[in-house]
Amino acid sequence: MSKMTMLLSRRLRPSPFEQRVLEHGATEFTLYNKMILPLIYSSYAEQYTHLCEHVQIWDVACERQVEIVGPDALKLVELITPREMGSCAIGQCKYAPLCDENGGIINDPIALRLAEDRFWLSIADSDVNLWVKGIAYGRGFDVKVFEPDVSPLAIQGPKANDLVADVVGEHTRDIKFFWFTDEIIAGTPVKLARSGWSGQGGFEIYLQDSSKGNDLWDLFWEAGKKYNLQPGAPNLIERIETGLKSYGADMTIDSDPFEAGFESYMDLDKDAEYMCREALAEIAKTGPEKRLVNLFIEGEKLADLRSDWSVLNGSGDHIGVVTSQAYSPRYEANLAFAIVDAAHADVGNTVKVDAEGVVRDATIRDARWREAAN
Amino acid sequence: MSKMTMLLSRRLRPSPFEQRVLEHGATEFTLYNKMILPLIYSSYAEQYTHLCEHVQIWDVACERQVEIVGPDALKLVELITPREMGSCAIGQCKYAPLCDENGGIINDPIALRLAEDRFWLSIADSDVNLWVKGIAYGRGFDVKVFEPDVSPLAIQGPKANDLVADVVGEHTRDIKFFWFTDEIIAGTPVKLARSGWSGQGGFEIYLQDSSKGNDLWDLFWEAGKKYNLQPGAPNLIERIETGLKSYGADMTIDSDPFEAGFESYMDLDKDAEYMCREALAEIAKTGPEKRLVNLFIEGEKLADLRSDWSVLNGSGDHIGVVTSQAYSPRYEANLAFAIVDAAHADVGNTVKVDAEGVVRDATIRDARWREAAN
Repeated sequence: MSKMTMLLSRRLRPSPFEQRVLEHGATEFTLYNKMILPLIYSSYAEQYTHLCEHVQIWDVACERQVEIVGPDALKLVELITPREMGSCAIGQCKYAPLCDENGGIINDPIALRLAEDRFWLSIADSDVNLWVKGIAYGRGFDVKVFEPDVSPLAIQGPKANDLVADVVGEHTRDIKFFWFTDEIIAGTPVKLARSGWSGQGGFEIYLQDSSKGNDLWDLFWEAGKKYNLQPGAPNLIERIETGLKSYGADMTIDSDPFEAGFESYMDLDKDAEYMCREALAEIAKTGPEKRLVNLFIEGEKLADLRSDWSVLNGSGDHIGVVTSQAYSPRYEANLAFAIVDAAHADVGNTVKVDAEGVVRDATIRDARWREAAN
Repeated sequence: MSKMTMLLSRRLRPSPFEQRVLEHGATEFTLYNKMILPLIYSSYAEQYTHLCEHVQIWDVACERQVEIVGPDALKLVELITPREMGSCAIGQCKYAPLCDENGGIINDPIALRLAEDRFWLSIADSDVNLWVKGIAYGRGFDVKVFEPDVSPLAIQGPKANDLVADVVGEHTRDIKFFWFTDEIIAGTPVKLARSGWSGQGGFEIYLQDSSKGNDLWDLFWEAGKKYNLQPGAPNLIERIETGLKSYGADMTIDSDPFEAGFESYMDLDKDAEYMCREALAEIAKTGPEKRLVNLFIEGEKLADLRSDWSVLNGSGDHIGVVTSQAYSPRYEANLAFAIVDAAHADVGNTVKVDAEGVVRDATIRDARWREAAN
């Protein structure tokens, strides 16, 4: 079973873009940070093809923000991530995995620096506000931590540059990857960041007034007609091809950042205090016990992943589990992420996958889906 | 719109009882603590009638546990709630709202004391593990905080006593309300608590091995046939009639425990340190600005509540919002909870409710739905 009928209630928060999403015929949804995230308008496969060729508008209001503001804001942000944050400029974003004192991953937000003493964490699916508030209280830090009224809308795809330049101005072409500017769009102040949960390029627009959702959507919708703009969503196929990991599926509090392959996002020798320093130093000595790998599974399209599919070695021993999976039209294979024992995690290793009784040959590939890293 | 199709993934955790839930024909679900909670097998109305007359088996595995264990466990539990916890006996449960340093409600768990230095918080829908872990880290407390493999199954309804006595033993009739015992049921150790999210009586069985879900379900299912056991779920109609509030709908981090009417669950003069002491003392001086009240809405069944319905005074001024609502067959009226300005919150006050354009007369009633408290 891969779908269920979800009964709504006020506990499950609507997005400021929900009216437009429904008018455009969204048919399948998920919940993310207790907010409704539209996923399907036609199908993942059709939306994938369109996303790689044109431009899409995504309701990603569920990417909630945790604002940290006050004299101790930087000290607090440094404390909760192994990434060095002091050098993050105002107007810059950094992908900053959060780890607890055991190295367990709490979330993998993008941090935006709004001012010397003010950050937003643009979060994946866990209550980071509670985590950060708890630590701030416990340490007696002089900060405020709260969820502001901020709802991102994403413009993604190869034509995103042209569309955003038309709507916001030619200067937006010069915004660098993972930087943002302050703009007024549809009469309302937003942050415009070159970022987004796809590898196709584009922007995330941080709407700061949830009453303006329709206005913002409509402006891009009208201007987007000449670029074949369609409504879309984070796309399972595209994000696996691109290598984007999903918190809660590909990593959890039981994962550490070495297992997750986050070496580029750790500055273990940074000067600032950070809570996972000792734990990560310990793991670094021997390497992690498991690794999140790219798994190329032969054969026709498999069923949707819901339960744990076992990864087996040649002798049939359980060596891991598949964490995400989709059939890729580009590679004509099932691409997956899997957490496997480190001893079996080398690129080129052949394994088997037991997909609820359907056993397939599979090979560990590198982060770009090549048979050997080079 | 009151329903959506939910696309499943490994991020949304299945329950150990899911196989049986689906075999019994559950049709509508929600997500709660990132876990699937089955709600509807026939309809709220039919399940309500059956719940009040017979006995039901509920998959409430989504009531996750946060375990707090170690020398500082009691100190930490005291810190996070205004309720006095030192007198909670081993084997006893206490409803213990959690409040932050501003008095904002973080969650409203039932705390179970398992040992002098070991508690479970059986939580509503927010990541309490992150909140408590963050505080424990920040304060340097000597405790472990984690989510154990524990999944509650509820047996609720007037015949629950007989069914549980048949399955577990006659001694279970003597378990007092909000106390629990250690039992072996279906060959697996559980905690058996007299508790549950209805006013019809019954038990919650804390399964401690998620591989035993079918065994536990099947044992009660077979024994329950003579009592007309049916699968059920927390019931919107019944819980509103009974006065049970839902975190995320009826109260949030923006509510305080005075607003929520939690006076019986606060011991503001307790000796132990607790983080909301100053904030609650301040609110106590003047009383809260708003109150969560029982609202009796005249007329035929209204639509399902999804958006904010305004509560208006006689002059048409906005004085509050409806937070939960259901049509009650017992009262032949729409019963609701609403957060209204304290000045308008007295029992007997007449107001109007704007239910997305349908305006109805309504009266504030007491906690037992009487026209005047007595």
